[in-house]
Amino acid sequence: MKPPPRISLDAMGGDQAPEIVVQGADKAFAAYPDISLIFVGDERKISPLLKTTRYMQEADIHHTDEAVAPGDKPSQALRAGKNTSMWRAIELVANGEVDAVVSAGNTGALMAMSKLQMRMIEGVTRPAIAGFFPNPHGQSCVLDLGANIECDAENLIQFAIMGSAFYRDIHGGVSPSVGLLNVGEEDQKGFDYLREAAAVLGADSLNLNYHGFVEGSDIAGGKVDVVVTDGFSGNVALKTAEGVAELFQGGLRSAFSENISTRLGFLLARSGLRRFRHKLDPRRYNGAVFLGLNGISVKSHGGTDAFGFSNAIGVAVHMLQQGFIPEVKSAIHKARYILNKGINDRDE
Amino acid sequence: MKPPPRISLDAMGGDQAPEIVVQGADKAFAAYPDISLIFVGDERKISPLLKTTRYMQEADIHHTDEAVAPGDKPSQALRAGKNTSMWRAIELVANGEVDAVVSAGNTGALMAMSKLQMRMIEGVTRPAIAGFFPNPHGQSCVLDLGANIECDAENLIQFAIMGSAFYRDIHGGVSPSVGLLNVGEEDQKGFDYLREAAAVLGADSLNLNYHGFVEGSDIAGGKVDVVVTDGFSGNVALKTAEGVAELFQGGLRSAFSENISTRLGFLLARSGLRRFRHKLDPRRYNGAVFLGLNGISVKSHGGTDAFGFSNAIGVAVHMLQQGFIPEVKSAIHKARYILNKGINDRDE
Repeated sequence: MKPPPRISLDAMGGDQAPEIVVQGADKAFAAYPDISLIFVGDERKISPLLKTTRYMQEADIHHTDEAVAPGDKPSQALRAGKNTSMWRAIELVANGEVDAVVSAGNTGALMAMSKLQMRMIEGVTRPAIAGFFPNPHGQSCVLDLGANIECDAENLIQFAIMGSAFYRDIHGGVSPSVGLLNVGEEDQKGFDYLREAAAVLGADSLNLNYHGFVEGSDIAGGKVDVVVTDGFSGNVALKTAEGVAELFQGGLRSAFSENISTRLGFLLARSGLRRFRHKLDPRRYNGAVFLGLNGISVKSHGGTDAFGFSNAIGVAVHMLQQGFIPEVKSAIHKARYILNKGINDRDE
Repeated sequence: MKPPPRISLDAMGGDQAPEIVVQGADKAFAAYPDISLIFVGDERKISPLLKTTRYMQEADIHHTDEAVAPGDKPSQALRAGKNTSMWRAIELVANGEVDAVVSAGNTGALMAMSKLQMRMIEGVTRPAIAGFFPNPHGQSCVLDLGANIECDAENLIQFAIMGSAFYRDIHGGVSPSVGLLNVGEEDQKGFDYLREAAAVLGADSLNLNYHGFVEGSDIAGGKVDVVVTDGFSGNVALKTAEGVAELFQGGLRSAFSENISTRLGFLLARSGLRRFRHKLDPRRYNGAVFLGLNGISVKSHGGTDAFGFSNAIGVAVHMLQQGFIPEVKSAIHKARYILNKGINDRDE
């Protein structure tokens, strides 16, 4: 048995902090009653909120007055930093007092502070932001969503290893299928570094279920479980998908509110629509993770609610229960020989 | 008055060629009765189809037995090539017998053959594929959708010039707003070549309505009229958007067919849904164009129907009527000094 997960929460990060952090923590505890949660932030604001919860009445608060502003650049946040709730919540992981941190605050600041305090897993050259997209039969993991705009073959191979482990920790299963995002499925497509990564990813000894190149449409199509790409393309894909989803949602809202008949139609179709909406509910796949760091740092969407925040805590819990960090350490260590060999062979 | 547009049609390109080509031509003629259309392909198949049309009874056919296969690589198509319907339809533009070509065939082959026969506009360093996406208030033009996976600042600036002219030719208006796709709106984001392009795009003398950096969500959001990016990111965005649209369409179909109540709901809401569906109908924004070539070559979606194909012909008609090629020639010529100056200044 693994020890019960201990998680620090940046109580001041996010559009509706600390309310949704406290309520989300309460919901998460209901789902995972062996976890212990520590709130980091303004005690005067957090304390009265804890009184309103079911399970968080006695929860620990690490007080600090300061918080990272949503608009701060990572460099500003780092300068301002060591008394902010975000820094101090991460510090608890770095010190070993807790096992993971969850924040709905500024993504760039969380990334920079987490990297600085937790450092990288030995052998990992770049961290990646991984998140989930809905697809017809579940969810696809996509990484990198924007940590590194430029990536080489080695980065992508490491992302594939880390993304597979992450997918398995959250969704179970034995060997998630992995695809490399490209502009076509044919072997000759794309950049040199993509073909280089593809040649190595197929190696048996990496123990990955490598499918091959995939295209943008395969993300929401769910052709593979894990889609690996550089942070520029991953960010473009994520945000394009969000934009299209909003276009549909806005369009459907207008369509149903057009007249009495369409309103009535909506009411009659509501049971089906509700199931569909549930499937695409962004709160259900809330919780992006910085993979490659020597610790677990989960980024909740800044605008989520208590349900969404509790799911981000759930991501941390699953990663801890499944032993994500030791698993990735061992996989990256094993892969180093293959990586060096594979990439050098191709350079010759 | 400009002379009436003459357009050659690759009658054998596309999933349902030559049927949809002939029917699409008939529809296009109904909308633009001064155009003349030439069919290039298998006379034995085309001729009986023309008999069934309203306006195409007497249309010219340039006979050839051969056609580019949908799965051919551009290099294969080029080797096979000079008797294919695609090559010969483009040849009519290169010879000056017609003003534009429309094909629903293999994209890579059409690009390669068009480039080889039409050549580039003087001063344009790379061609781009431009297409339209729906947004809440109309359509956004996005380019490059995949002609060049790697682009530099000069390419992007030229894409902005060509994309603006293209948008204006199709949608009217004076000065379409232009955004550069990036992973954030802040000036310091992204690659060096993006910041380099941004610095030049703002120059008054380029006569562009440059907005700044935009993100993937702004494509379907419609923040700007023209979104400029490299062919890798553009292709990822296009296909991710298609995938999300399919996910929604599939989900809505299941939602409405769940039970008697949801089916009835669909019937009652149908008027609103139909308007929404019309807005997102991919046939309405069918017709991607290879910009930068010294001639007009329009690529229809391979799986479209007659209505979609007629819209692709419409794109060619608008570009001809508005004088796209002379306009771009002059704009690129004027921009050359600014381009050289702007980019050299930044290199120093």
